[in-house]
Amino acid sequence: MEGETLMTRAREMLDTHPGSAAMDTDALIECIDACFECAQTCTACADACLGEEMVEHMKRCITMCLNCSDVCVTTGRNVSRQTESEPAMVRAALQACAEACRLCGEECERHAREMNMEHCRVCAEACRRCEDACNRALSAV
Amino acid sequence: MEGETLMTRAREMLDTHPGSAAMDTDALIECIDACFECAQTCTACADACLGEEMVEHMKRCITMCLNCSDVCVTTGRNVSRQTESEPAMVRAALQACAEACRLCGEECERHAREMNMEHCRVCAEACRRCEDACNRALSAV
Amino acid sequence: MEGETLMTRAREMLDTHPGSAAMDTDALIECIDACFECAQTCTACADACLGEEMVEHMKRCITMCLNCSDVCVTTGRNVSRQTESEPAMVRAALQACAEACRLCGEECERHAREMNMEHCRVCAEACRRCEDACNRALSAV
Amino acid sequence: MEGETLMTRAREMLDTHPGSAAMDTDALIECIDACFECAQTCTACADACLGEEMVEHMKRCITMCLNCSDVCVTTGRNVSRQTESEPAMVRAALQACAEACRLCGEECERHAREMNMEHCRVCAEACRRCEDACNRALSAV
Repeated sequence: MEGETLMTRAREMLDTHPGSAAMDTDALIECIDACFECAQTCTACADACLGEEMVEHMKRCITMCLNCSDVCVTTGRNVSRQTESEPAMVRAALQACAEACRLCGEECERHAREMNMEHCRVCAEACRRCEDACNRALSAV
Repeated sequence: MEGETLMTRAREMLDTHPGSAAMDTDALIECIDACFECAQTCTACADACLGEEMVEHMKRCITMCLNCSDVCVTTGRNVSRQTESEPAMVRAALQACAEACRLCGEECERHAREMNMEHCRVCAEACRRCEDACNRALSAV
Repeated sequence: MEGETLMTRAREMLDTHPGSAAMDTDALIECIDACFECAQTCTACADACLGEEMVEHMKRCITMCLNCSDVCVTTGRNVSRQTESEPAMVRAALQACAEACRLCGEECERHAREMNMEHCRVCAEACRRCEDACNRALSAV
Repeated sequence: MEGETLMTRAREMLDTHPGSAAMDTDALIECIDACFECAQTCTACADACLGEEMVEHMKRCITMCLNCSDVCVTTGRNVSRQTESEPAMVRAALQACAEACRLCGEECERHAREMNMEHCRVCAEACRRCEDACNRALSAV
């Protein structure tokens, strides 16, 4: 992650945790960070889609973004909890999150390409980053 | 579900929805209801565990309950969203929730049996109900 | 609350808590219950509004319902946490929740009356119940 | 906010929103960002406190951090929703969040000072930043 700007204090918090992380620290931090970023971006994209004149065509994207945002908050928190963390539970959350981000990212990407929706383009990027981070964390957990 | 007391207005809300549900309605409503119930119960069980004198022994249970509560809120909302619902996304959430409830329920059940923790017994019941409801919803979606 | 059907296991959980509640138990339980019920109902109402053909006219209601749902989950959890609970923090959440429910309830009530939206009528009821429960809890905390 | 590193894509999302923000954009973005950062930090601090050997002394801090994290997610989302945003609802959330961050920040600051808990020091910083950002957003909304 050299050169990358972290969005949360996840690294500081992990460095000051009384225990040692149950998994690879870099993959963990990147995943937490991507989850919280994607949670905000999806909330904002659902809202921007709702603000579009052609909201009628944005219904599927809104539902996707709302669901994806919830899954991202839950997963970001789940992965943040390192005290007596249960790998099977973290894995279940990571799998759901990777899948939610994949589906939401595809839908947003389609709107970005076909309808020139810039907020969907930004959201697709956040979704792809989070999908990748969840998949990397899955290999590490 | 005849005779069963619903905990949410999920049935009323589904009956008044402008669209038709994408899946079996009874399984859907039972799942939404169980998710919100389990979300509250797990939050309260984490808190009750924290209040125990022997909190040192409750760390794993607290982390499980906090994670399970988050997954349950997310899944209860996900399943509540019927407009342009994407089955693959709902399935991902349901699978994570069934697994989180299974793991949390086992941990709470153990505390109920071995340490006579009554709040863990109640929580184990809520977790098992939610795990079952998620599995039934998975067959229906 | 005699005769009333509770939606959560809040009473069971409070009865089995190792400590004693920091406030009047009935007001507490009713508030937790109303918050989780309203959280689900508002999520479902936002979704039903999104499913309406005239979604263009439902934008304000959708934003209200999404915000109110989030505030209700947060407040229901906050009030559920009785171990070393801080009254000033609980009060801040209860005030926000009472206000969110009042505003969302008014908006939904208007849609129920003027546009005959049945899901908005159900949601307005859940919002009013939750507003009342938060106000009673505020007196008790 | 020149020179400051943003943690979310809040600015990109606001710049690509079809409407215009209902309030001062810089205060808005800083507030969204601080809320999501604080949500993650408080979740991680509750977990780090739980991992301490002297967890018995951390109970109040854990409850504070869990409550504050929930309020921060809710407020960060509330402020992110700009389509038909209702100032009274946003204000209610911002007030609750400023108060939650003030209380949680004080508790964490005390643990940082008296018990040399580094994770509490980081968390106190995130809480203070978020409290300030909420107060500035309150003036702007």
